[in-house]
Amino acid sequence: MYDLITKKKRGGELTKEEIYYFITGCVENTIPNEQQAALLMAIWAQGMTDRETTEMTLAMAESGDMMDLSSLPGVKVDKHSTGGVGDKTTLVVGPLASATGLTVAKMSGRGLGHTGGTIDKLESIPGFRTSLTMEEFFDGVRKNGLALMGQTGELVPADKKLYAMRDIISAVDSIPLIASSIMSKKLAAGTDVILLDVKMGSGAFMKTLEDAEKLAQTMVAIGEAAGKRTEALITDMNQPLGFAIGNALEVAEAAEVLHGNGPEDVREESLMLSAELLYLAGRGHRDECRRVAEEALRSGKALEKFCAMVRTQGGDDSVIRDPSRFARAPVVREVLAPRDGYIVGMAAEYIGGVSVMLGAGRDDLGDAVDPVAGILLKKKYGDGVERGEVIATLLTSKEDAVAEAEKRFLSAVTIGDEPPAPRPLIYARVGKDGVVRFDV
Amino acid sequence: MYDLITKKKRGGELTKEEIYYFITGCVENTIPNEQQAALLMAIWAQGMTDRETTEMTLAMAESGDMMDLSSLPGVKVDKHSTGGVGDKTTLVVGPLASATGLTVAKMSGRGLGHTGGTIDKLESIPGFRTSLTMEEFFDGVRKNGLALMGQTGELVPADKKLYAMRDIISAVDSIPLIASSIMSKKLAAGTDVILLDVKMGSGAFMKTLEDAEKLAQTMVAIGEAAGKRTEALITDMNQPLGFAIGNALEVAEAAEVLHGNGPEDVREESLMLSAELLYLAGRGHRDECRRVAEEALRSGKALEKFCAMVRTQGGDDSVIRDPSRFARAPVVREVLAPRDGYIVGMAAEYIGGVSVMLGAGRDDLGDAVDPVAGILLKKKYGDGVERGEVIATLLTSKEDAVAEAEKRFLSAVTIGDEPPAPRPLIYARVGKDGVVRFDV
Repeated sequence: MYDLITKKKRGGELTKEEIYYFITGCVENTIPNEQQAALLMAIWAQGMTDRETTEMTLAMAESGDMMDLSSLPGVKVDKHSTGGVGDKTTLVVGPLASATGLTVAKMSGRGLGHTGGTIDKLESIPGFRTSLTMEEFFDGVRKNGLALMGQTGELVPADKKLYAMRDIISAVDSIPLIASSIMSKKLAAGTDVILLDVKMGSGAFMKTLEDAEKLAQTMVAIGEAAGKRTEALITDMNQPLGFAIGNALEVAEAAEVLHGNGPEDVREESLMLSAELLYLAGRGHRDECRRVAEEALRSGKALEKFCAMVRTQGGDDSVIRDPSRFARAPVVREVLAPRDGYIVGMAAEYIGGVSVMLGAGRDDLGDAVDPVAGILLKKKYGDGVERGEVIATLLTSKEDAVAEAEKRFLSAVTIGDEPPAPRPLIYARVGKDGVVRFDV
Repeated sequence: MYDLITKKKRGGELTKEEIYYFITGCVENTIPNEQQAALLMAIWAQGMTDRETTEMTLAMAESGDMMDLSSLPGVKVDKHSTGGVGDKTTLVVGPLASATGLTVAKMSGRGLGHTGGTIDKLESIPGFRTSLTMEEFFDGVRKNGLALMGQTGELVPADKKLYAMRDIISAVDSIPLIASSIMSKKLAAGTDVILLDVKMGSGAFMKTLEDAEKLAQTMVAIGEAAGKRTEALITDMNQPLGFAIGNALEVAEAAEVLHGNGPEDVREESLMLSAELLYLAGRGHRDECRRVAEEALRSGKALEKFCAMVRTQGGDDSVIRDPSRFARAPVVREVLAPRDGYIVGMAAEYIGGVSVMLGAGRDDLGDAVDPVAGILLKKKYGDGVERGEVIATLLTSKEDAVAEAEKRFLSAVTIGDEPPAPRPLIYARVGKDGVVRFDV
């Protein structure tokens, strides 16, 4: 291990054997913590080659159980977001993809900090169960082509160990370490196709397009090297996605999109992701895939898939059929524009923080979340506002949190005199052949 | 601590408060090992400014007891070597400096690996005690102007902690960390003058003149910032110093120098170091200081000082008066030149390793050393040899080690066809005003 640290700190390239030695030693606790920390910091400083990153990812993926989805029919696809605020696209893309004949057998996570989690959102549907046995999970997929469940404990123990260490020693912000952490879980999840939604902007881990592209390229290289069809879209996270932030609020908004309504950004991003999944699954040209995705949405087939999954997993699909039936939060506070002008900034990570204050998220993984709490935006980036006009509604069960939340919300919104330059929703597509930037 | 790591890994400068927080937390075990390791690796990668290194050194020095030599008369001086093979100059410089009226109250260390230690050497003098009470130590200094003892356990606990950590995580080879380790002990030792003998070459930690100068400059900056007159000489360690390697053998060679004989390199380096101590103590121009040092040697006063110290510390000074009275090793093996030619290489660290095999050194601090074991070189760098001529004598009590030691010794010596370019003994002097390179 001493020799590995020495090699890496001097910029050397670790061999496959050395990488497996390190990952195995971390999982089995045979390498002292200080040596693990030193190697991680040396990797932070020196980086890793694509080969090293791929081998580390495989070593991590193999450190625990690997899902075997081969007994399931169809092309198994996974769409993964690097984490944002108001991102409910999984709730649209999952049903949409399964409605087009793709197989969606997905394990999702819970929210932490300003980022929400699909499992928390789904649990706001009355009766919906996210803890399934493997048999129930596979049965659900066979029945509906779609099942979503919480992660089980045995997948990628190496990532849990390494992430906890990185979190203590300030070695989180390293592209090879982020890429191997995400991709090890994707490889262990066993799908044929991996589509990554890499968020970019103030509310995302990657603040610049260059960093987001580098992370996307690294992850795509890993996925392709491991034999998976892998691509990434780089999407905007300078403001929340859609109007709804909070668990039931986001399910309702996703349901609205499935009904053919809902915010344009959520609809467009979900269609783009779904079409790309079809393309990666070999279902023809991108134009054709887009048409197939649009038709699945328009026809209501995607909505029916969502309802079928909800029923199969014990939930009440009446809230999906009529989102107005979701329970409402007892405390409602309208946030008013303090001046005339245009919204020129809506800092996603701070707004995510406000939703945590309101009860919609958690700072510790053990905390419960309030399904009905959250934020409904009325205005977004670029919109004109008049002084006294409602820019958002805060919803909570915590009367005493609302004043501070309103103050924090207002500090996250910038109102300027002139309309700001428009910002794209999707910046780039990153595949094994390189980066295609859209009209940025 | 997380914020300290983040700052340093990004190349930031730690404040005094942050540095003291780190050092205190290491000594008191309130900072987890993985965070200590991560910060040390970040320091390895990003370096430290002179201000940071000085404050870290002071924080380390203050982590334990600080010697107070103020009750002792005269200018208290210390000569410190960064560690070499065959370096017995302390045994000449100490007596010489005290013979010129300087005060030498010095704690020394034991040998480890290929590097010898003054305390091991002194213990080869029959009866000589290196474990003294503070009262005995101070009494010895008052009586003779000279006392040498082993380190006590309470000086610079921070260095013990940090060094053990660096040793595990491959963060030893960092100039600010080396400089703070050495200088924290020198500052805690409480002398007015610090003269550093920075070894350079294959047998030293610093392999190039540039690295040696950088380390010297860093240490001089620390010493001067802490109010000590501090300088460094950069001296050669591409081959052992003198002809003798091993504890009694080196004391005998030092005694020979004090008798006016002995190898020219040991004599010259000792005189240079002694004259520099006088200069730093304010005893006039360098030329004058050199004359004073030469006279103390020529007159026999330095020899008398050594004998007086030996007697005061319980030793038998007859071996100093007549070095041939030292006990001899039972096993003697002459190493013969395998071919005609010139010695063009005599790798000091490997020869130090051979002396360890023979019993003169140790690989673990708990091991005992054999006082009579070692090597007597007959030829050195640049000397002509004929096939079958003796190039060295190996001395040991371990009959079974001698064949392998001979093989290893021969592999450390390179014989070429042409005489090599001469190499200087002393490369440069580094003071607060900069570097003076000699005729390199």
